[in-house]
Amino acid sequence: MQNIKTLIHARWVIPVIPEGQILENHSLAIYQGRIVDCLPRIEAETRYRDAHQIELTQHALIPGLINAHIHSPMSLLRGLADDLPLMEWLEKHIWPAETKWVSETFVRDGALLAIAEMLRGGITCFNDMYFFPEVVAQAAVEANMRAVIGMIVIDFPSRWAKTPEDYLRKGLELNDNYQNHPLIKTAFAPHAPYTVSDESLTQVAILSKELNIPVHMHIHETVEEINRSITQYGMRPLGRLQRLGLLSSRLLAVHMTQLTDQEFQTITKHGIHIVHCPESNLKLASGFCPVAKLYQAGINIALGTDSAASNNDLDMFVEMRLTALLAKALASDASAIPAKQALRMATLNGAQALGLEQEIGSLEIGKIADIVAVDLGGLETQPLYDPISQLVYTAGRDKVSDVWIAGQQVLKRRQFTTLDERLLLSRTQAWAERIKESRKFT
Amino acid sequence: MQNIKTLIHARWVIPVIPEGQILENHSLAIYQGRIVDCLPRIEAETRYRDAHQIELTQHALIPGLINAHIHSPMSLLRGLADDLPLMEWLEKHIWPAETKWVSETFVRDGALLAIAEMLRGGITCFNDMYFFPEVVAQAAVEANMRAVIGMIVIDFPSRWAKTPEDYLRKGLELNDNYQNHPLIKTAFAPHAPYTVSDESLTQVAILSKELNIPVHMHIHETVEEINRSITQYGMRPLGRLQRLGLLSSRLLAVHMTQLTDQEFQTITKHGIHIVHCPESNLKLASGFCPVAKLYQAGINIALGTDSAASNNDLDMFVEMRLTALLAKALASDASAIPAKQALRMATLNGAQALGLEQEIGSLEIGKIADIVAVDLGGLETQPLYDPISQLVYTAGRDKVSDVWIAGQQVLKRRQFTTLDERLLLSRTQAWAERIKESRKFT
Repeated sequence: MQNIKTLIHARWVIPVIPEGQILENHSLAIYQGRIVDCLPRIEAETRYRDAHQIELTQHALIPGLINAHIHSPMSLLRGLADDLPLMEWLEKHIWPAETKWVSETFVRDGALLAIAEMLRGGITCFNDMYFFPEVVAQAAVEANMRAVIGMIVIDFPSRWAKTPEDYLRKGLELNDNYQNHPLIKTAFAPHAPYTVSDESLTQVAILSKELNIPVHMHIHETVEEINRSITQYGMRPLGRLQRLGLLSSRLLAVHMTQLTDQEFQTITKHGIHIVHCPESNLKLASGFCPVAKLYQAGINIALGTDSAASNNDLDMFVEMRLTALLAKALASDASAIPAKQALRMATLNGAQALGLEQEIGSLEIGKIADIVAVDLGGLETQPLYDPISQLVYTAGRDKVSDVWIAGQQVLKRRQFTTLDERLLLSRTQAWAERIKESRKFT
Repeated sequence: MQNIKTLIHARWVIPVIPEGQILENHSLAIYQGRIVDCLPRIEAETRYRDAHQIELTQHALIPGLINAHIHSPMSLLRGLADDLPLMEWLEKHIWPAETKWVSETFVRDGALLAIAEMLRGGITCFNDMYFFPEVVAQAAVEANMRAVIGMIVIDFPSRWAKTPEDYLRKGLELNDNYQNHPLIKTAFAPHAPYTVSDESLTQVAILSKELNIPVHMHIHETVEEINRSITQYGMRPLGRLQRLGLLSSRLLAVHMTQLTDQEFQTITKHGIHIVHCPESNLKLASGFCPVAKLYQAGINIALGTDSAASNNDLDMFVEMRLTALLAKALASDASAIPAKQALRMATLNGAQALGLEQEIGSLEIGKIADIVAVDLGGLETQPLYDPISQLVYTAGRDKVSDVWIAGQQVLKRRQFTTLDERLLLSRTQAWAERIKESRKFT
């Protein structure tokens, strides 16, 4: 299979680079997991006569979407407790449920559920932060899903690790085990400024630089976080992270709803990447990330769903659309963050934030074949005047028909090729029953 | 068929009244277009042995969604011009396209496309405002769709009518033709304060009172509208409408993104209904309707999609979710507008705004059988802890499986029973080709 070329004929190919480009009636040639050609269909047919041919006559091909922030195993807690103030939600529902339930099996079943949902929604790479990261990595490999696995560091103990040193040691072991893996990369994932000590953060800063590995962290999610930091450390979190040497172009700062003008300059100066999670920020009433202003300052913005517990879906189409819509409303400018920019944030900008922009994030010759086909032929996406606009403002993830990761087709007419959907569902429902039952007595 | 009862067995029945109620393993009995019973499945099987039985084992039944503001024929202009400032969008793209293309056939094909999209998304009633309203009414009847058809009044001529008097006369003729129709009601639809004269508005106020018919109008959509009114009339639009006698509990005020404290009192005093269109307001950067504050003031809030030209879909699931999410973020309170309230806005509150709350908007015995089944059994909506939360925060409209209007099943496992999908698609695409072609030369 890897020795014969695959040729995907599509109504539109949207490579993301150059931004806004739409290639009509084009074909992508895939060979040994990479895109080896992108050309008009009519030429492709002549040049690649022996290739395995796939017809997608009313579809747009886009680069696989990159979910730059998620806690995948939390999918098992989707909708457990909604419409509650943030601290009540965390302290009375999410943390107790995690303390009670999180285990190797929970992480495995939750991650597989999340991976299945993401694949069927056109996501081909996710940047994860959770306990038992080696179990998430294994789940991703099984599904042939690309992932950046967080080496989580947090000051309080879990079933996975007891002390910050224990977390780091186990994380680095994971990193060793996945050296040069074709699908799995790692990132340091110190949870947040308010849950990790100066000592651990300093160590992460040093290791990140030494090993050239990204750092994935919640930063400036809420006003309370800022206030707490000022009380405890005499400065805002970003200032503290700067003092600890964590600010660099390896840093993915997730949320960033609270930003001063001075902090804009700091972000620019250090080349920090912002991961914007609009739906989670709205649902938890965390605040608004100033996306249009960040964009104008030339700062790289990627998008993430956050976990299904605070979202409540892992839908990057929703995040793309919300990013464009919210940016317009907040900037009082309907031309702010047009569709093509939102699409780029959900693809190439995510790759760039993760240091993977040479390999994924656009449909360019030489890049890895992480490709998504979106069917734009149905009633809900017609008439069609501009396929990029239609992808961002009209199409839902239910229009994703086929997905390839590293050239392997993992979704075929909406059916999984690497996962057993029935088994995933029955395991998910078994977890839900146990969790529901236990909550009756608390 | 109307003489035998239909019994729908569902995993959950969510009647909307009482708010938040979830009936597990219940059945609805339908007879002659109405809900005649709602009872535990086990009792239903005994009581209605001879009924036609429908099994929906992993579905929630909800009242049909009510789209309280739309210009249905504009679906043919979906995505024609996006990411543009409001006035450029209107003046350079939408209005010229309407001037060139709007005709009886355009309206018919556009309305049918919109109706199909709405039906498959669980919408069973829409409140329309457009030219050639009698054509929209006819399309709705053909599809067995419920609609409130706007008797549009606007100061400038169209292919449908030349003068405000002409508009009103034709509207009233439509009203006469649909007296006591089971599916079609009418509303006066003066376009907006800035496009209708004092004289016409006064006439609408008198006729609305005399005939007890609702008034459907864009009001306080943007800051510019307010400023223009102050310049032209020396007062804000709402003040002017009050002077002209238009404020009453028959008024549906669409958008309302700009509100003073004084205006909150005016709205409450007159029992005005607000129609909130969150996605349209974001996309056109119109402003934010203060939903949480309106809710706290006890004001009735319904939801609308607006047209597919400014949205770009007719998806009430998106509007429900956005309503809850935006309200939380704007109020800095994650408990603002919980899921059950958003669901009520999309159903019963819409019925109330249209004066139809005795007939539709909830699943209560005696009401008309406008019912939607949503399949919550898939990966994307599991695990499930709270079906109402799942409907609002997780499910997409693609999970709508079956729809009944006045007891007739119009969607059966996502297939239309009253519409020819292929024909609609080919007509839609033919329009798109003509419109695209003509734009090449402008």
